[in-house]
Amino acid sequence: MKNTIATLVKQCPELENLKLFSTPFATTPYLADANEKHTRKLINSIEEAIKASGLKDGMTISFHHAFREGDKTINKVIDIIAGMGIKDLTLASSSLLSCNTPLIEHIKNGVITIIYTSGMRGELADAISHGLMKKPIQIHSHGGRVNLIQKGEINIDVAFLGVSTSDEFGNANGISGKSRCGSLGYAMVDAQYARKVILLTESITAFPNTPASIRQDQVDYIVKVDQVGDPSKISVGAARITKNPRELMIARYAADVIENSGYFEQGFSIQTGSGASATACTRYLGEKMLRKGITASFALGGITEGIVALHEQGLIDKIIDTQSFDNAAGISLGKNPNHIEISTNIYANPASKAACVDQLDVTILSALEIDLDFNVNVLTGSDGVMRGASGGHCDSAAGANLKIIVAPLIRSRIPTVVRNVTTIVTPGQNIDVLITDHGIAVNPKRPELIERLTAAKLPVTSIEKLYERAVSLTGEPKPIKFTDRIVGVVRYRDGSVIDIVKQVQK
Amino acid sequence: MKNTIATLVKQCPELENLKLFSTPFATTPYLADANEKHTRKLINSIEEAIKASGLKDGMTISFHHAFREGDKTINKVIDIIAGMGIKDLTLASSSLLSCNTPLIEHIKNGVITIIYTSGMRGELADAISHGLMKKPIQIHSHGGRVNLIQKGEINIDVAFLGVSTSDEFGNANGISGKSRCGSLGYAMVDAQYARKVILLTESITAFPNTPASIRQDQVDYIVKVDQVGDPSKISVGAARITKNPRELMIARYAADVIENSGYFEQGFSIQTGSGASATACTRYLGEKMLRKGITASFALGGITEGIVALHEQGLIDKIIDTQSFDNAAGISLGKNPNHIEISTNIYANPASKAACVDQLDVTILSALEIDLDFNVNVLTGSDGVMRGASGGHCDSAAGANLKIIVAPLIRSRIPTVVRNVTTIVTPGQNIDVLITDHGIAVNPKRPELIERLTAAKLPVTSIEKLYERAVSLTGEPKPIKFTDRIVGVVRYRDGSVIDIVKQVQK
Repeated sequence: MKNTIATLVKQCPELENLKLFSTPFATTPYLADANEKHTRKLINSIEEAIKASGLKDGMTISFHHAFREGDKTINKVIDIIAGMGIKDLTLASSSLLSCNTPLIEHIKNGVITIIYTSGMRGELADAISHGLMKKPIQIHSHGGRVNLIQKGEINIDVAFLGVSTSDEFGNANGISGKSRCGSLGYAMVDAQYARKVILLTESITAFPNTPASIRQDQVDYIVKVDQVGDPSKISVGAARITKNPRELMIARYAADVIENSGYFEQGFSIQTGSGASATACTRYLGEKMLRKGITASFALGGITEGIVALHEQGLIDKIIDTQSFDNAAGISLGKNPNHIEISTNIYANPASKAACVDQLDVTILSALEIDLDFNVNVLTGSDGVMRGASGGHCDSAAGANLKIIVAPLIRSRIPTVVRNVTTIVTPGQNIDVLITDHGIAVNPKRPELIERLTAAKLPVTSIEKLYERAVSLTGEPKPIKFTDRIVGVVRYRDGSVIDIVKQVQK
Repeated sequence: MKNTIATLVKQCPELENLKLFSTPFATTPYLADANEKHTRKLINSIEEAIKASGLKDGMTISFHHAFREGDKTINKVIDIIAGMGIKDLTLASSSLLSCNTPLIEHIKNGVITIIYTSGMRGELADAISHGLMKKPIQIHSHGGRVNLIQKGEINIDVAFLGVSTSDEFGNANGISGKSRCGSLGYAMVDAQYARKVILLTESITAFPNTPASIRQDQVDYIVKVDQVGDPSKISVGAARITKNPRELMIARYAADVIENSGYFEQGFSIQTGSGASATACTRYLGEKMLRKGITASFALGGITEGIVALHEQGLIDKIIDTQSFDNAAGISLGKNPNHIEISTNIYANPASKAACVDQLDVTILSALEIDLDFNVNVLTGSDGVMRGASGGHCDSAAGANLKIIVAPLIRSRIPTVVRNVTTIVTPGQNIDVLITDHGIAVNPKRPELIERLTAAKLPVTSIEKLYERAVSLTGEPKPIKFTDRIVGVVRYRDGSVIDIVKQVQK
């Protein structure tokens, strides 16, 4: 056979790199052992898996945040990494929340030196806003994160992905087992792009575990752990059901605006997100759909119980789910065949070959602040401290035909409509309508909307009048005192810098 | 804002490459147009799509062969490419069949100069065996193909993937619409790795088309065509139901061997392939499973009606399907939730992070020839002419715990058991049992199998005795006359050269 290669290369010199067959298991030695082929990915502890992954100082680690405030993976893994003496890591979690307060310690001790995230809340956000980190954190949208990964700016060495079930090969999902987060939309991206993928799973199921949101050809190591997350905390602070009359009023206006916008037609599509008004709006919209006898082709995005209810009533044909915002959404994903799980690449990445947000008719979004140019801030509070997330905000605002902001005019004596937002996350060119409890403002670049909503006798006013109204009620807010130091960089979905966040003076 | 970047870079010089936000649609100009965002992938003709893809002389094009003898895509696209004057292409179809005879012309005229394929049949195979091509064709296994793609040896510039349905974004499957091929296991790989992906679809469905075997983030252009394939021809020459008593005898032996092998236990797993004996064996095995009250955890591979029947009887929990070998399999994939579609990367690639074949207990495989070392030839006939395919043969033989060959001892007065196979596709180290109509030979490296099958009073003999028997019936076959020229290179699943095929003398 040695002659074979020589003969071959003589006839075809371009084949000189071909190698001769040696043994059947030359590249798959584990196949020579009937046991090892089943156990080769199973590792006894997170520490051993980290060692096996080759994680070293200066590398990038990633996590998903599908359990939101109930996450039990991020802090635990970084504790273990810190205990192993690994330093100077870039943390690329799809987002961070109040539960991640313990990371403050690991920033102080040099384990984490760079952070990429969609947002932050609580003590961690407060500390970073006040200058905890030497390097500014990078805030990205959900779609923008995938873009940064594909371009190599976020270059994930090791992804640690918490799942409720996996088989011994790494076929994993978030819809079976004990702690179910529902969609693994964020994790699917990390599983695809990370150099090494470590699954933390609550149970090892029989092969093949299906459906496989994360697939065996993406997974290197599997560690069984007690708990990866607490699903009861997924909706904490997000998808609460409101009885607040102001929020209900805004929700009702939002449903009226959609009904009269020109987009409320058979087969329309919608993203509602997780705010209280948006959730309530879903209910009102359902009533209108029943009344008019129309159904939606799909609902997209972070999915809530309200969307699931409309789907189960037959009012929404398909649910496209990149993040299950509550337990009900996760359960629906597990049982409703037309509730579809998608990665954030498919959801919203502007550089992917197609993003679902581009198909949207209507998106309902929230705001911490919105200014006279309709620019929206969903990141920093009126005190300049970071307390929110970019999320899919600028993504769905870019893709949808009708981009609606719902927000109370004033929150705790602080105006939502301002002259200039503290931080721009979504550019005003991509916002069409602001709905508040004091009236509705339409972006002047959408005159046909002004006409339609006025004709429908909705309380249409201008953003300037809403601003004046806010100021008349609360007084002109005092300017925030910032130092010159940059603590955060806000990236638009295409990776460009749309704003920076400066350190708040103590 | 220009100052922003300057300030940022002053504080963080490593961020000097960041760009400032310009406009919301800087990288997604199509989003500025409510119509264009829906139509940007839809192209009126295959020729326009080829132009848009940038296909040029010397590039590599790929296809899937899920329609087998009913394919209507490969020949048509290559005709159009030829008409456009593009030359010197590498053709990387997952396989080629008798229906691809028209390619002879496009090899002669220089449109196709290199071929990678799992196999060939009919006039094309005959012409290549007799020296049609200047460069030898490269024969790979299904798993090995993905390996060559991932290593870059097969570097797909443009994939042309025929599907029955796709939406306007490219979410496509083979289980809905008119010409359904079932699993798109091969196409899934090309959709992931090709630089440009052109879908040829029989219909454009409403967004989102689900399930999406091929996903919108993998597709560049979509062309509506009349027909991509004839599903009634998928099983031509493959999954025929046999009444041949010799084949039925082999099938019965095979079921008996499995029953007594030590692997026939609750939760066992199996791949049966598409040969007549293998298909019949499935039926006998089902009877044994019912009798013993055991069920299989999964069946893998090319899936046939017989496997579907056992699944629907509850005897096989899950079907893992990389290629639907008949219409019934495709229909089952569309309706049975535990009939799962997988890519060939997940099916069998030795370089993927895990291949399903590694989970197999039993695989039943066919052979054109098998020699005294149990080496198997599934590629060349006794006349040295190529007329078969590597397929998943060496892949599942590498992964399974029990590797069974079923073959008649003699076919049309030509012995199957030979001293040395004309071409090695699967090394004898990975074959355990040969079952013929004249007895059963067990590889001496599996003494425990010899014991078990002998104890079960099965007609166990040796491969040498089978060889002698064959020769006594047919006489020693005459050696084939080859020239010195190499016309084919047989690659083992790891990419190494396991054999070469020489040109047959006329």
